[in-house]
Amino acid sequence: MRRTNIQLDAQGRLRHFLTIEGFKRQMLVDILDTAESLATVTDQSVKKVPLLRGKTIVNLFFEASTRTRTTFELAAKRLSADVLNLNIASSATKKGESLLDTLHNLQAMHCDMFIVRHEESGAAHFIAKHVAPHVSVVNAGDGRHAHPTQAMLDMFTIRRCKGDFYPLNVAIVGDILHSRVARSQIHALTTLGVNEVRVIAPKTLLPKDVEALGVHVYHDMKAGLKDVDVVIMLRLQNERMSGALLPSEHEYFNLYGLTEEKLAWAKPDAIVMHPGPINRGVEIESSVADGPQSVILQQVTHGIAVRMAVMSMCLGTVAQPTGGEA
Amino acid sequence: MRRTNIQLDAQGRLRHFLTIEGFKRQMLVDILDTAESLATVTDQSVKKVPLLRGKTIVNLFFEASTRTRTTFELAAKRLSADVLNLNIASSATKKGESLLDTLHNLQAMHCDMFIVRHEESGAAHFIAKHVAPHVSVVNAGDGRHAHPTQAMLDMFTIRRCKGDFYPLNVAIVGDILHSRVARSQIHALTTLGVNEVRVIAPKTLLPKDVEALGVHVYHDMKAGLKDVDVVIMLRLQNERMSGALLPSEHEYFNLYGLTEEKLAWAKPDAIVMHPGPINRGVEIESSVADGPQSVILQQVTHGIAVRMAVMSMCLGTVAQPTGGEA
Amino acid sequence: MRRTNIQLDAQGRLRHFLTIEGFKRQMLVDILDTAESLATVTDQSVKKVPLLRGKTIVNLFFEASTRTRTTFELAAKRLSADVLNLNIASSATKKGESLLDTLHNLQAMHCDMFIVRHEESGAAHFIAKHVAPHVSVVNAGDGRHAHPTQAMLDMFTIRRCKGDFYPLNVAIVGDILHSRVARSQIHALTTLGVNEVRVIAPKTLLPKDVEALGVHVYHDMKAGLKDVDVVIMLRLQNERMSGALLPSEHEYFNLYGLTEEKLAWAKPDAIVMHPGPINRGVEIESSVADGPQSVILQQVTHGIAVRMAVMSMCLGTVAQPTGGEA
Repeated sequence: MRRTNIQLDAQGRLRHFLTIEGFKRQMLVDILDTAESLATVTDQSVKKVPLLRGKTIVNLFFEASTRTRTTFELAAKRLSADVLNLNIASSATKKGESLLDTLHNLQAMHCDMFIVRHEESGAAHFIAKHVAPHVSVVNAGDGRHAHPTQAMLDMFTIRRCKGDFYPLNVAIVGDILHSRVARSQIHALTTLGVNEVRVIAPKTLLPKDVEALGVHVYHDMKAGLKDVDVVIMLRLQNERMSGALLPSEHEYFNLYGLTEEKLAWAKPDAIVMHPGPINRGVEIESSVADGPQSVILQQVTHGIAVRMAVMSMCLGTVAQPTGGEA
Repeated sequence: MRRTNIQLDAQGRLRHFLTIEGFKRQMLVDILDTAESLATVTDQSVKKVPLLRGKTIVNLFFEASTRTRTTFELAAKRLSADVLNLNIASSATKKGESLLDTLHNLQAMHCDMFIVRHEESGAAHFIAKHVAPHVSVVNAGDGRHAHPTQAMLDMFTIRRCKGDFYPLNVAIVGDILHSRVARSQIHALTTLGVNEVRVIAPKTLLPKDVEALGVHVYHDMKAGLKDVDVVIMLRLQNERMSGALLPSEHEYFNLYGLTEEKLAWAKPDAIVMHPGPINRGVEIESSVADGPQSVILQQVTHGIAVRMAVMSMCLGTVAQPTGGEA
Repeated sequence: MRRTNIQLDAQGRLRHFLTIEGFKRQMLVDILDTAESLATVTDQSVKKVPLLRGKTIVNLFFEASTRTRTTFELAAKRLSADVLNLNIASSATKKGESLLDTLHNLQAMHCDMFIVRHEESGAAHFIAKHVAPHVSVVNAGDGRHAHPTQAMLDMFTIRRCKGDFYPLNVAIVGDILHSRVARSQIHALTTLGVNEVRVIAPKTLLPKDVEALGVHVYHDMKAGLKDVDVVIMLRLQNERMSGALLPSEHEYFNLYGLTEEKLAWAKPDAIVMHPGPINRGVEIESSVADGPQSVILQQVTHGIAVRMAVMSMCLGTVAQPTGGEA
């Protein structure tokens, strides 16, 4: 029996983009290929294509994030869409309107896409289940669950730097437990078929069943970084510092902070990635963040192209093959 | 002697849209007809027409309202206008600049239209009296006075559902006293010539002179809904609950909340309307709000077309007959 | 040895616009001429030209200012640019990201221009020194240092009213000490070669070395306004009132507030200017601000054209002569 994937339409084309889970390898490759063709747009003098002209994209942010909102807003504008920025915490809910009523109203206004950010895991799925057939939903981060466009821009960056996924060893370092970014990255890397995905973290920052995701666990940077092609550093949330999960910022940096010395344990041509914003001197040393192996700012650039690709694929304005279900 | 109507220009064409009062029936019909022709725009794949290209529309909101601001912003963008959102409470007045100076500055910047929301009755009129000849003002709700675009989207919805206004009996239920929506609806319904307008409310929520507006007063839902074609429920402001005007939310719902049982007292094909946002279980039961007779979400959709019509008529970018004065 | 000017590119064309200092007279004339050709755009029915289509302009405001932000936003939209409004105080810095990291991220997103407002003098220069070669920076006011687009719109207004700069006597009245506007005006007026620049203020509101800027100092309005063609009133910041710098608002108005009586001391055809927002009855009487000699609202109108000129010159989308360095 085929499992239906809410993210695909009846023809197997991308409709929502909520999580990497459930996609076949080919769908991820299609997204990367579409992003590649759109990446040239931002290099042009006139950085605009009319793919989403007349479409209305709503940034539906229940959790504030200027940075992520900005990347989606720029991607939408470069596709010639109209953009509405709604900070839901401060508007409808004040008057006691329910989330579903807000959604139904926005789609009655013929909005075409909701970019959803929410502090609760599953929020984007919940919304996708309740929207009208003409509306698409893109998850811009939900609780600890997923941040799939971030993962895809990371894959885009890896492919641009390394060419092929198969031979790569990739290490993800830091607070895996609380990171929706790490979860989405792990699913994307395993689906795209890298040789090995490693997570490097203290036990207190790892989910219990993390090996079930297909990763190898390391608690030590030296062992974990050996033979690695890609080092992905995670942001350490300041609020974890004061809790029982971490001894101290200083000790964390000593053990897991990426320094030039530790980076030397990876392959000489390893690239260093970080989803941003960076805590300099906490999870990464400035000389590494700004160094020759860092591709952190390329990630930001690629984020625009990848979000343009996901938006235009979901709204059916670029050609896409069918059959992306896992 | 002809009474001059500030809302019309010297040729009798629509210039400002501040209140329904003072308009002839034909002007309201023109607005509905223009909205009908623009309603198809939002059904197209590219939801945009160039009617207001190069025009600057300013959302001048002295009272916060994400929902109303959003509908005007979408309407303006679908007409290809540029939109400025100004929350006046938090900007110029801080530095002590007067309202008129703010207006004069905005029109010196060649802004073409002010969409005004203000907690004081008469604010939009005051602004319309003081703007330059090239500037139009649309009232998006002033105190307890008027909310004319809301009334016109309601008329549009009634006409779409019922065809003709003449034979209709329309009941407006709830807090008439504090409702700018109800005042504008009553003027629109009587101008368009419905058979009967009824208001149904407890005495404490009715203005003293309400019958002078040409309505019949009912305090009882069963009598008031008999033979009615259109039931318009008003939002009950939460802040009224704790005051002396209402016994309790529970008792209000028992007497005036619209349930399936009470709706059965109206005609079998009666439609149910509500300006939103809905207080489910306060003034309306969910099974009615989401039921087959509800046209609440159609109202939202029609709100875009009606606002596009009013904006393009005021700015003279669509043809309109003259002579709309009452 | 040629002193390099960070505001010019290698070919001597405008790249950043941070301060009037360091520009040759010809560059200022080029800006005024370009603004003159763009001023007609805002008089057209479709107030839009495609000069910056596909460009992304970021309003990077570290100090809130709805008014200034609005003029830049309108100027950018009328050039068909995409505009991002970022209030930095409330976004990235919350998460501890450094200013430079924020900048690097925005330019990695292919933003083309930063409009910078900051409470610290030198902030726009600092940012200009650190941006990538494809990015331009426009100073929208930094501390007490400079507000060069304000000065250029003032020059544009003077030229439109008076034709030629050479014969003019110009008086700047008020709080010179704290005014970035006054500093930029003085540099622009002396560079453009007016006959005489005067500052009129109490000693407590004058910088110590003000005469080194090439101005004549007056403490008395009657003497200072004699034979003057242009009177520029400065805004008196309310926060100066309560300090030791000023005796009282009332006494300040008596001595330096511009009244019809005092204005009569200037030439009969003298024009009155003010950067806004006006404190009526504090530094200027309403009958003067709204009177026949006032060009205050023309200044606002010209501000759009001048900002359009500076933006399109910095981004190289209009032809400009080279050799603007002092």
